[in-house]
Amino acid sequence: MIYPLNETHDPRLTSWVESANDPNTDFPIQNLPLGVFALGEDEMPCIGVAIGDQVLDVSATSEALWADNLTDVIADACALESLEMLMLWEPEVWSELRLRLSRLLRTGNEDRFLLEEYLHPMSEVQMTLPTAIGDYTDFYCNLHHATNVGRMFRPDNPLLPNYKHLPIGYHGRASSIIISGTDVRRPCGQTAGDDNQPTFGPSKLLDYEVEVGFFVGQGNRLGEPISLEKAEEYIFGLCLVNDWSARDLQRWEYQPLGPFLAKSFATSISPWVVTLEALAPFRVPATRRAEGDPQPLPYLFSTNNEAHGGFDLQLEVLLHTQQMRTQNIAPLKLSHGNFKEMYWTFAQMLTHHASNGCNLRTGDLIASGTVSGPTKDARGCLLELTWRGTEPIALPTGETRTFLQDGDEVVLRGFCEREGFRRIGFGECRGVVLPA
Amino acid sequence: MIYPLNETHDPRLTSWVESANDPNTDFPIQNLPLGVFALGEDEMPCIGVAIGDQVLDVSATSEALWADNLTDVIADACALESLEMLMLWEPEVWSELRLRLSRLLRTGNEDRFLLEEYLHPMSEVQMTLPTAIGDYTDFYCNLHHATNVGRMFRPDNPLLPNYKHLPIGYHGRASSIIISGTDVRRPCGQTAGDDNQPTFGPSKLLDYEVEVGFFVGQGNRLGEPISLEKAEEYIFGLCLVNDWSARDLQRWEYQPLGPFLAKSFATSISPWVVTLEALAPFRVPATRRAEGDPQPLPYLFSTNNEAHGGFDLQLEVLLHTQQMRTQNIAPLKLSHGNFKEMYWTFAQMLTHHASNGCNLRTGDLIASGTVSGPTKDARGCLLELTWRGTEPIALPTGETRTFLQDGDEVVLRGFCEREGFRRIGFGECRGVVLPA
Repeated sequence: MIYPLNETHDPRLTSWVESANDPNTDFPIQNLPLGVFALGEDEMPCIGVAIGDQVLDVSATSEALWADNLTDVIADACALESLEMLMLWEPEVWSELRLRLSRLLRTGNEDRFLLEEYLHPMSEVQMTLPTAIGDYTDFYCNLHHATNVGRMFRPDNPLLPNYKHLPIGYHGRASSIIISGTDVRRPCGQTAGDDNQPTFGPSKLLDYEVEVGFFVGQGNRLGEPISLEKAEEYIFGLCLVNDWSARDLQRWEYQPLGPFLAKSFATSISPWVVTLEALAPFRVPATRRAEGDPQPLPYLFSTNNEAHGGFDLQLEVLLHTQQMRTQNIAPLKLSHGNFKEMYWTFAQMLTHHASNGCNLRTGDLIASGTVSGPTKDARGCLLELTWRGTEPIALPTGETRTFLQDGDEVVLRGFCEREGFRRIGFGECRGVVLPA
Repeated sequence: MIYPLNETHDPRLTSWVESANDPNTDFPIQNLPLGVFALGEDEMPCIGVAIGDQVLDVSATSEALWADNLTDVIADACALESLEMLMLWEPEVWSELRLRLSRLLRTGNEDRFLLEEYLHPMSEVQMTLPTAIGDYTDFYCNLHHATNVGRMFRPDNPLLPNYKHLPIGYHGRASSIIISGTDVRRPCGQTAGDDNQPTFGPSKLLDYEVEVGFFVGQGNRLGEPISLEKAEEYIFGLCLVNDWSARDLQRWEYQPLGPFLAKSFATSISPWVVTLEALAPFRVPATRRAEGDPQPLPYLFSTNNEAHGGFDLQLEVLLHTQQMRTQNIAPLKLSHGNFKEMYWTFAQMLTHHASNGCNLRTGDLIASGTVSGPTKDARGCLLELTWRGTEPIALPTGETRTFLQDGDEVVLRGFCEREGFRRIGFGECRGVVLPA
C-alpha cells in the first residue's frame, strides 16, 4: 500500500508554530511524527506530535477537542500513555488523525489559542519508548554490509547461498531497547583470540550500526501469513535504530546460533515515529538486482513492491568524543548513506517474517540491519569503516578511533529530501558510551 | 539458592483432595504448581494450583481468606489474572504462599468446606499462558544434543570451540508461545537442496524438541549483571517446553544469524509452573565435566552450583498418530531422558544471559535446549532419533516415522522421583500437528 499524496503533503502549507516553517527543520507540518513524552520524571506519559522545535500534547488536545464524541476512536486511542491503541487501528484511522493534526497546526487555524497551552518546547520534554515492544526482530538486508562483513570473516565465501533468496533475520532482545539519549554501558563478556582460550572482561571492540526500523500496527493471527501486497498495511511508522554491537563478544559466541550477548546489552531508537503516509513522496523502486541475481520467489515478489518498495531516506552517523565535547569541537560525520540501498524491502521482510504463520503483534519492532552503501563513506558501522580496525579514523582533536571509546557519543540522523516537497526528518538517535 | 527442606516436602502429608494421595499423581500436596485457568472461553482467567486431578482457584481462595488484610501482598498478587505480580516478589513471598496452600489442602483442615466450592476438575478448566512473556530465550546446553547435531551437519568438526566455555543461546520468538493443547499448524517456508535453489511450501521435516524452561521472577536492571550465587533467586519455577522445529527451513535459513522461521511458528509450554521450592529434594550435582574439559570462567563457577545446580527430572516423549488414536492404540514412548544431563545449569544460563548487563524481566521464559542423553533412547528430537531421517521409527500401527506427519500428537511428560519423597510431576505438554 502506497499512500496517495493529499493535502497534508502540500509543500505550501505552513504552521502557526513558526519553527516548523524553517526549511531546515526535521518537523515541518508535512511530517507530524508521533511519540510519547513526559514533562518530568514523575509525570504521566502522553502522546505527542513533533512540530518544529515544539511538541503538541495530542492526549490533551484530544481531551479538549474530541473526547465529547463517544464514538471517536481517535479520542480513545489518544487518551492513553502509549501509541499502542492507535497502532491497533487500520491505516484509515492513522490518516484521519494525521489530517486532523495537520488542520489544527496550519497557519490560520482559529483554535490556535486553545492549543497553545498544549505546546511544549521539545528541549524540555522527556521522550520515552512509544509503545511496549513485544518482540524485536533484526534483519540483515543490506547487500553492501553483508558483503563487507562476509569478506572480513569468510574471504573465500563472503555471501552465503541463501542471501539473495530470502531476507536473513534473527530475533533480537526486546527488553534492552532504549530511547535515544539513554547512556549505554560498555558490556562485559567472553572474548577469545585465535587460540580459543576465552577471558571475561569489558568489550574492546564496541561498535554501532545505523539501521531503520518500523513498528507493526495491526498484527496477524498465529498461522495466518501476510501477503506482500498487503504488507504495508501492517506498518505504522519508521524510526532510527542503533544496534550497538560488541564485535569481540560476537566473534566468539555467534556460532552456530547467531548473535546473542554481543547485541542484547542495548539497542537505541529515535523517539519520533514517522508515519508511512508522511513518507509517501519519498517512495522509490526497490534496489535493482544485479544482472544474474535470482528473482524472488512468488510470495516475495510483486510489481508494486518493485516499483515503490524502497525509501529515499538519507542516513548520517556522527561521532562526538568526550574530548571533542570538552574542546567545543562539532561532531564529526563518519558516514552518509541511504536507505534505498536495501536488497530487501520492509514489505518483503514483513511478509517473509509471517510466511511461516508467525504472529506479529502491535508494537513489535522490526529493524533493517546495518544500512551501508557502495562507497566507503556510506558504510554504516565502524567494523566496515575501519575495516575491522585496520584503518583507524583520524579525529579533529588528534585522537583516532577504530572502535568506540568510553565517553564517545554516537548520533544517528535521518531525513528525506526531494525537489518540490518539504524535508521530512527523523530527528536524532543518540547515545553516550559509559565505562563498563 | 537451594531451598531448605521444610514441612511442605514431608512425604507423610496427605490432602483432603483424595486424588492427590494417589502415588502416581503428578500433583500431590508436596508439589503445588501454579498456573492460570478459566472456566470457559468467556470467563476471566484466575490463578490456580494443581492438586491431584483438581484445580483450586487460588484467586477466589485469596479473596475469601486473605483479602481483608490490607497489607497482605499475597492477597494482592493472587487477585490478578496472571502470575506476573506474584513472580515480581521475592522467594520468601513465594514460599509463604506455598506454605499457606499446603496447610489449606492438608487432611484435617477445618476450612475444607469453605474451599470445596473453589475446586474444579482439571479436565473441565482451560489453561492459559501463566503470564505475559516479554522475551523468550532458548539455550543449547545439552552436550549430547549438540554433539549429535554437530556430527550430522559438520562431521569433521561436530562441537564448536566455544561450546564448553559458554552456554550457547539465542533469542526466540515470544509471540508464538502457546499453551499445551493448542494445535500447531505445519509451517510453510523456503527449503533448498544441495543445488541451493529454493522452493516455497509446507515443511517436510517437522520435528519436536523436548526442553525444560523457567520463568524469571524478579528481574534485574539494565546494566546490572546477576552473580551465579544469586541466580536462582531470579527463578520462579519450571515448565516443559516443546520447541517445534522445521528442519528443512532451518537448514536453508540459519546461516549466518541462527534459527528464525524454522522455530518461530510455535513453541508449546506445559501449563503448570513447578516452583523451585517443590523441586528442592531433586537437586543434584551439575553434570560432571569430562576429563580435560575446561573449568568455567570464574563468573560461571561456584562450588554450590557444582554441588546442587542440576535437577533429577525425568523427561518422556510420546507420539500418538491419527491412526493410533482411531485404532485406540496407546501413545508410543519415543524417548526417556533426564534433565540432569545438561552441560550447563539454569543458574549458569541466567548468569551468562545477564553478564553483559542485559535486563531480564519478570515473566521472561528461558529454555534449556533439547535434552538428550548418552543413550539412543534418550535422544530428545526426531532429528537425532531417526538420525536425520535415515533410521525410521516403526509404530505399532505398521506406520513409520522419520519426521512428524499431519495429525500426529506429540506429548511431553516430566516428573521427579526419589526414594523417601513423593513424586513431583510437571503434567503434560501436548500438541497436534495440523496440515499447512
